[in-house]
Amino acid sequence: ENILESEPIVYRRIVVPHSGGKEYCTDSGLVVPSISYSLHKKLLSVAEKHGLTVEKRLEMSGVCASQMALTLLGGPNRLNPKNIHQRPTVALLCGPHIKGAQGISCGRHLANHDVDVILFLPNFVKMLEPVTNELNLFCRTEGKQVSNVKDLPDCPVDLVIHCLDCQENAFLRDQPWYKAAVEWANQNRAPVLSIDPPVTDQEQGIHAKWSLQLALPLALGEQSGRIYLCDIGIPQKVFKEVGITYHSPFGCKFVIPLHSLQD
Amino acid sequence: ENILESEPIVYRRIVVPHSGGKEYCTDSGLVVPSISYSLHKKLLSVAEKHGLTVEKRLEMSGVCASQMALTLLGGPNRLNPKNIHQRPTVALLCGPHIKGAQGISCGRHLANHDVDVILFLPNFVKMLEPVTNELNLFCRTEGKQVSNVKDLPDCPVDLVIHCLDCQENAFLRDQPWYKAAVEWANQNRAPVLSIDPPVTDQEQGIHAKWSLQLALPLALGEQSGRIYLCDIGIPQKVFKEVGITYHSPFGCKFVIPLHSLQD
Repeated sequence: ENILESEPIVYRRIVVPHSGGKEYCTDSGLVVPSISYSLHKKLLSVAEKHGLTVEKRLEMSGVCASQMALTLLGGPNRLNPKNIHQRPTVALLCGPHIKGAQGISCGRHLANHDVDVILFLPNFVKMLEPVTNELNLFCRTEGKQVSNVKDLPDCPVDLVIHCLDCQENAFLRDQPWYKAAVEWANQNRAPVLSIDPPVTDQEQGIHAKWSLQLALPLALGEQSGRIYLCDIGIPQKVFKEVGITYHSPFGCKFVIPLHSLQD
Repeated sequence: ENILESEPIVYRRIVVPHSGGKEYCTDSGLVVPSISYSLHKKLLSVAEKHGLTVEKRLEMSGVCASQMALTLLGGPNRLNPKNIHQRPTVALLCGPHIKGAQGISCGRHLANHDVDVILFLPNFVKMLEPVTNELNLFCRTEGKQVSNVKDLPDCPVDLVIHCLDCQENAFLRDQPWYKAAVEWANQNRAPVLSIDPPVTDQEQGIHAKWSLQLALPLALGEQSGRIYLCDIGIPQKVFKEVGITYHSPFGCKFVIPLHSLQD
């Protein structure tokens, strides 16, 4: 009989110095290994050294995350001139750190594209400069900013974007505003997109439907939902400098879905 | 008879203080007026004042221009793992100015996406910092840099990206390297994409098939080919500050085609 069984194409074109604990593959079968948090951090810092500054990264991740969010919100079917009376609403939950700044950048691009954005950012007297910069720009959109969870919408929004967590500020999770924001997100029935979430074994946090990771994935847990990877413009030789043999898995895209190879 | 003639939907949601000389519309009929070079310059400078720095703009325009170029090169049909032996080739012609830096940023993202990029940039002892920064990052890709037109390919490439011109450095057009690059582009039979070209009545330059403009269009001439507009993340209130009533014509996209309303 002429039955040809189609094997999944597996290409290993990314080789990492030590496994991050999980392996993924792209739609076309390219293997994308995870890396540890410390290697990820080193990758970003070497990229910065070569000129891919935090500012550049915030802009790039903001654009790509907003492109993904716009697709999740319905893309051209939802966002067209005939639909202007039915603007989608996004609640953006941000902590006072670089991950939060990434979210604010995404929020600016969404607000620029006719999305009703409500940004929750707790009140701090002094914040990191990249956070303040992104906030200044966000304030020039029609988006709304609140610092109290009570001012977030009562009814379900179309999408929650979650940028509260940060590997190095885990203590923030004990603060009242953090707990209130998590509770609000869990009560609102909207699906959640996490941007660049840290690895955590925390069970009581926000359960995401999708998580967008940057450059190379970390080994995220179940509560991160479906994994997407975002190209943030790091050149091949920068990967090499931290010991990673890298060949882009992105094809012509900047955001791609990843599938767990363990499944 | 039941013949309903479908009128094009025309929405005027962008109002400029004085006409730039042309009007365009989007696929869905939104009117996009052109603005003068001086108003465009003012718009970018007010955006910079609010934190949308040159660096941010370079990253954003680079990503969006590369997304457009990847589509022009054939998108997923051309750039997939099965096609790795048939990488497209792009010749990138850049001058030593911010417009050139935008091109180099685009070139980095293309090289990161498996495109064979050959960057032509004339040799200068000292260049603007944004140009040097982008060049440093480009040098970390597999892309190639040449400073002599003789080192550009003899055979037709898949796409030429043209970033030689700059409104304020018109004198560059008299330099030998400029003339040689224009001659090379006109002899190579590849289609040309111009990024952010200036308004010029120059007839002997490079004729583009497509031109990508940023934020709002200038009134470009015939030799600019088909016009595309790129969202560079400027918030609504920044437009207002320079006297422009602005409402995004982009829908869920970041690059859209524009059609001349005079046609």
